[in-house]
Amino acid sequence: MTEVATARRSRITPEREAELYEAVLDLLREVGYDALTMDAVAARTRSSKATLYRQWGGKAELVVKAVRHSKPGALSDIDTGTLKGDLHALTLRSDDCQMEQNSALMRGLAMAVHGNPDLLRAFRDHLVEPELDEFRRILARAIDRGEVRADNPALDYVIHMMIGGFAARTLIDEMPPTQAFLLSYIDAVVLPALGASTT
Amino acid sequence: MTEVATARRSRITPEREAELYEAVLDLLREVGYDALTMDAVAARTRSSKATLYRQWGGKAELVVKAVRHSKPGALSDIDTGTLKGDLHALTLRSDDCQMEQNSALMRGLAMAVHGNPDLLRAFRDHLVEPELDEFRRILARAIDRGEVRADNPALDYVIHMMIGGFAARTLIDEMPPTQAFLLSYIDAVVLPALGASTT
Repeated sequence: MTEVATARRSRITPEREAELYEAVLDLLREVGYDALTMDAVAARTRSSKATLYRQWGGKAELVVKAVRHSKPGALSDIDTGTLKGDLHALTLRSDDCQMEQNSALMRGLAMAVHGNPDLLRAFRDHLVEPELDEFRRILARAIDRGEVRADNPALDYVIHMMIGGFAARTLIDEMPPTQAFLLSYIDAVVLPALGASTT
Repeated sequence: MTEVATARRSRITPEREAELYEAVLDLLREVGYDALTMDAVAARTRSSKATLYRQWGGKAELVVKAVRHSKPGALSDIDTGTLKGDLHALTLRSDDCQMEQNSALMRGLAMAVHGNPDLLRAFRDHLVEPELDEFRRILARAIDRGEVRADNPALDYVIHMMIGGFAARTLIDEMPPTQAFLLSYIDAVVLPALGASTT
């Protein structure tokens, strides 16, 4: 971090900063990126727009920082001994309320990341890649155990299948993705496509 | 259609109406629903805002009509004799350029349909349901032929898998969904999940 950046950030406490980022993420979920205004952030967080602009420069920078702040990305230690067990455990880490929140955040950002490279990078680095890493670890162990063949072509598409369950549930079924739905989707789709045991 | 509606619509020709709807769909793909303004529609179509408001009442109504106008939904007569053949033929109906356009339209609408019931209904009735019907016909024939078991749990999730391939390709891979990608995804994921032949 440069000296200038340190000086700028030191004007608010880390607690206050975290509070602001949470409010920005909430607004993103509620109205999406395009409709999010600095006025709304200022009103929600009882700050002045001048402070927001001085501290972050603009909406894009503020949203990027807020996305980076989300999900501390604590490495999980899921290792149940079966692929089915691991994927179910991964699903059960987020309760239905958190899943609906993540789904809303994805929706709020999906359009905006196109044409905004900084936002796309923050979205990928802080929301997508940590999830992908988790899947890669789980799948590597399933291959080591002999549960999944190393050349199974579905291995490249596990994240596509999962995102499909998540996104289509919202778009087509008009229902939030719930734990029960995702567990059933994993058993019906992901495990059979990988040729892994569903029992 | 009521008499009033007929009178209002008669002020522009069907050709001009189609042209307007195409421009609205283009703008939706470019900037999304929230950022789409009546000013931009007026500029793009060289019409006056007064005409647009008189004819359609407002942005939501105009977008709903434009979505309804898209995809005439001509019933396809795909029937190749195998599930793999049918799914591949369905994919090859849209060239890569059309697929990128549909993907952009989906992205432009995904956030907006939440909280706008009329738009959600138009989106479902005119973009989602015709696709679902096509899949249902193809899957019913695969079951009749004995290619897929009628109680295979993945049957409920075919559209989720397909949307996943489509959406994740854009979000995660930062690439447009192409014919080549979707054919490979169908072979690696959809057919194995359904227990159908991939050869």
